[in-house]
Amino acid sequence: MKSISIKELSNYYDKEVTISGFVDNIRNLQWVQFVIIRDDTSKVQVTIEKSEESNKEMVELIESLPLESTVKITGKVVESPKVKLNGMEIIPSSIEVTSKSDEELPFNFKDLNNVNLDTRLDYRFIDLRNDKNMLIFKIQSDITKYMREFLYEKEFTEIHTPKLIGTASESGSEVFEVKYFDDKAYLAQSPQFYKQMAMASGFNKIFEVAPVFRAENSNTSRHATEFTSFDVEMSYIDSSQDVMDLEAELIAYTFDKISKKYKDKIKEVFNMDIVVPKLPFPRLSLSDIYKELEERYNYKVDESEKTDLTTEAEKLCYKLSKDKFNHEFLFVTDYPADKRAFYHMRDENGLLLGYDLIWRGVEITSGAQREHRYEEVVKNAESKGLKDDVKFYLEFFKYGCPPHGGFGIGLDRLTMLLLGVPSVKESQFLFRGPNRLNP
Amino acid sequence: MKSISIKELSNYYDKEVTISGFVDNIRNLQWVQFVIIRDDTSKVQVTIEKSEESNKEMVELIESLPLESTVKITGKVVESPKVKLNGMEIIPSSIEVTSKSDEELPFNFKDLNNVNLDTRLDYRFIDLRNDKNMLIFKIQSDITKYMREFLYEKEFTEIHTPKLIGTASESGSEVFEVKYFDDKAYLAQSPQFYKQMAMASGFNKIFEVAPVFRAENSNTSRHATEFTSFDVEMSYIDSSQDVMDLEAELIAYTFDKISKKYKDKIKEVFNMDIVVPKLPFPRLSLSDIYKELEERYNYKVDESEKTDLTTEAEKLCYKLSKDKFNHEFLFVTDYPADKRAFYHMRDENGLLLGYDLIWRGVEITSGAQREHRYEEVVKNAESKGLKDDVKFYLEFFKYGCPPHGGFGIGLDRLTMLLLGVPSVKESQFLFRGPNRLNP
Repeated sequence: MKSISIKELSNYYDKEVTISGFVDNIRNLQWVQFVIIRDDTSKVQVTIEKSEESNKEMVELIESLPLESTVKITGKVVESPKVKLNGMEIIPSSIEVTSKSDEELPFNFKDLNNVNLDTRLDYRFIDLRNDKNMLIFKIQSDITKYMREFLYEKEFTEIHTPKLIGTASESGSEVFEVKYFDDKAYLAQSPQFYKQMAMASGFNKIFEVAPVFRAENSNTSRHATEFTSFDVEMSYIDSSQDVMDLEAELIAYTFDKISKKYKDKIKEVFNMDIVVPKLPFPRLSLSDIYKELEERYNYKVDESEKTDLTTEAEKLCYKLSKDKFNHEFLFVTDYPADKRAFYHMRDENGLLLGYDLIWRGVEITSGAQREHRYEEVVKNAESKGLKDDVKFYLEFFKYGCPPHGGFGIGLDRLTMLLLGVPSVKESQFLFRGPNRLNP
Repeated sequence: MKSISIKELSNYYDKEVTISGFVDNIRNLQWVQFVIIRDDTSKVQVTIEKSEESNKEMVELIESLPLESTVKITGKVVESPKVKLNGMEIIPSSIEVTSKSDEELPFNFKDLNNVNLDTRLDYRFIDLRNDKNMLIFKIQSDITKYMREFLYEKEFTEIHTPKLIGTASESGSEVFEVKYFDDKAYLAQSPQFYKQMAMASGFNKIFEVAPVFRAENSNTSRHATEFTSFDVEMSYIDSSQDVMDLEAELIAYTFDKISKKYKDKIKEVFNMDIVVPKLPFPRLSLSDIYKELEERYNYKVDESEKTDLTTEAEKLCYKLSKDKFNHEFLFVTDYPADKRAFYHMRDENGLLLGYDLIWRGVEITSGAQREHRYEEVVKNAESKGLKDDVKFYLEFFKYGCPPHGGFGIGLDRLTMLLLGVPSVKESQFLFRGPNRLNP
């Protein structure tokens, strides 16, 4: 008989079913054994009466079975209001052990409070068995599902751009080098150049969900050497306002869907409230933010630091946005362009026609209108001392290229903030950092 | 006014609209200019009467405008049965040039017959402007969309596994090496180990769509050093038959959806017929295939070659499957396990509990039940001389791991065969091979 998922059991009262899962717990009492079985949808109690002669074999099997072994159980689903766990139990007719666990687990994954994070990451396959951790990735999967759903509806095309690139183009210093036969290659820091190539190729609207690689030797809660980036680019925009509008709509749509499916669960497990953001998202220029932060919270920084958001200012933006706009998100605009990548468009005052999106005190996105005019983008590249490395890229703008813009969202960072987990180390399926390449 | 896509124009007869796109063609006649505008949804004719005094500026603009420039045009949509292109035209009131193309394109992308493939790939952003090439990636986007749709429906979780790995594990020889700070890393040849880690972590069903990297110095129509792999893995299977069933259903579902949306278009543009495959897909053992190929087509090979499908046998499998089963697909089973990766389960006769799926003469998938029993998988690894490199992987099976299996489909290869394009160089957004890292 095919296994059904535990979540579905309530549709099968008084019927014989087969389930499969991990042995989550065993209570071996004088007259009865209670075995809790766990799959990735739910848990259920299996009840074995010791007095029943026909249960003898099962009773013996359970007595010597280590927790975390996997089993396949056939039996009858019975509604049992007295059973705390979902008010049901299974009365088994057969139990098959499909894999046996070692007696001693590396740590107790049900209580991770006192387990060192590095130990947890060393045994990530045990760590993920924790209900809360499992839920993180169920939700992450749905986040990308809903984000794609929104974009498909708007006729975006999903593309897959190469991660192996010929030149260390975007900035050079933070790029991983690859031995490529007798030559060298590099790992793409972002799909930026190829998203833009799609625009030059005539795709109106594209997105990509793929790994990006950053050779940054930084050990913070927000950084990883590899992470999943959700990248969007579209043509024929009038300004970067169009890009912000799209991103705000995308996030509002996704949060609404996530809220509908998980609101209570997220409150229960993570003690976090999902606030579906209202449209439009508030927008403030960098200089206005520093003005407001000083006026409201007496936060002062030296003029020289005001070319970017300080980490502290980033954090205060959350408070500012809530106090001023009753909103969790804030688009920060009008950065000085000379501190930013050459491919962004800038206005006549040297200000970036782009933005960062700050949520809950953390930057989750950079977006912009890109420079699509050949002469301008060549000039911008040269002003950054870039030439040969970006030659292939500059070609994209020579034969007609529509005005365009886009943004990228770090999926792990978004997940981290949504669920209030302390680090991307926990919101990445398998974290990669300067000192972590295993498992 | 916001641009609408050209495909939508028939909803706007006698209304003023704005469209944006590339200048696809200009016919400058004595009394009139016909300008064809192209976006990624369709094309439309813009008609400018030269005699109209108010058109003077537009007429001059068009006279000096290079093809492939991009424009934004506002005007009235008029139903015009005499216009061959979709029976409509736009009578413009304003034209804005949003980017100007170089007069001379590297090649004529509308007729690629005589253009060298390498030149096309050097200027892929021009090459993709070809209607046919653009369509390939619209369809490819939908293929992954429908495949995901099928799996979401069955409660699969999408995961993102790391591409940077600590050991050159799977086979070693075909792995790219990465300079990782003061250490070395490698690029994952497949998400195999991490898909299985998800099973050990208690995920019932997962999939991943991501790049994989192969340091193979081979230059065929089917090979690339980087390509997109659609990978699926699920727990609690009874045998590899379950894996084959799932894959067949997945393909049938996807082809049905693609057929409904694109059947006529694919026939028109690629002259290919989409056959929605019937379930179940036929299955034959490797030895039966060689028997049949000899009996039916007098195809003989030496016994020593019968441990795998020869390229010729692979091709003949298409004919065999059509002749014997009236089916385009064929699952080939019972390969000798010693020629295959150590992580597959094998039966007591040393035969692989796995399969290759052959479609139109090409292998598009390998799938299998995996070895989930700790002692067995350790033995298999040791028999291949693997030990330290796979140590982290073998740990996955020590603390309970359900029986599981899965498969991977090369997205570019699938697209290539579906549309009958001659090489993955054309069904990858940007091809990567031993001699190609640019653009």
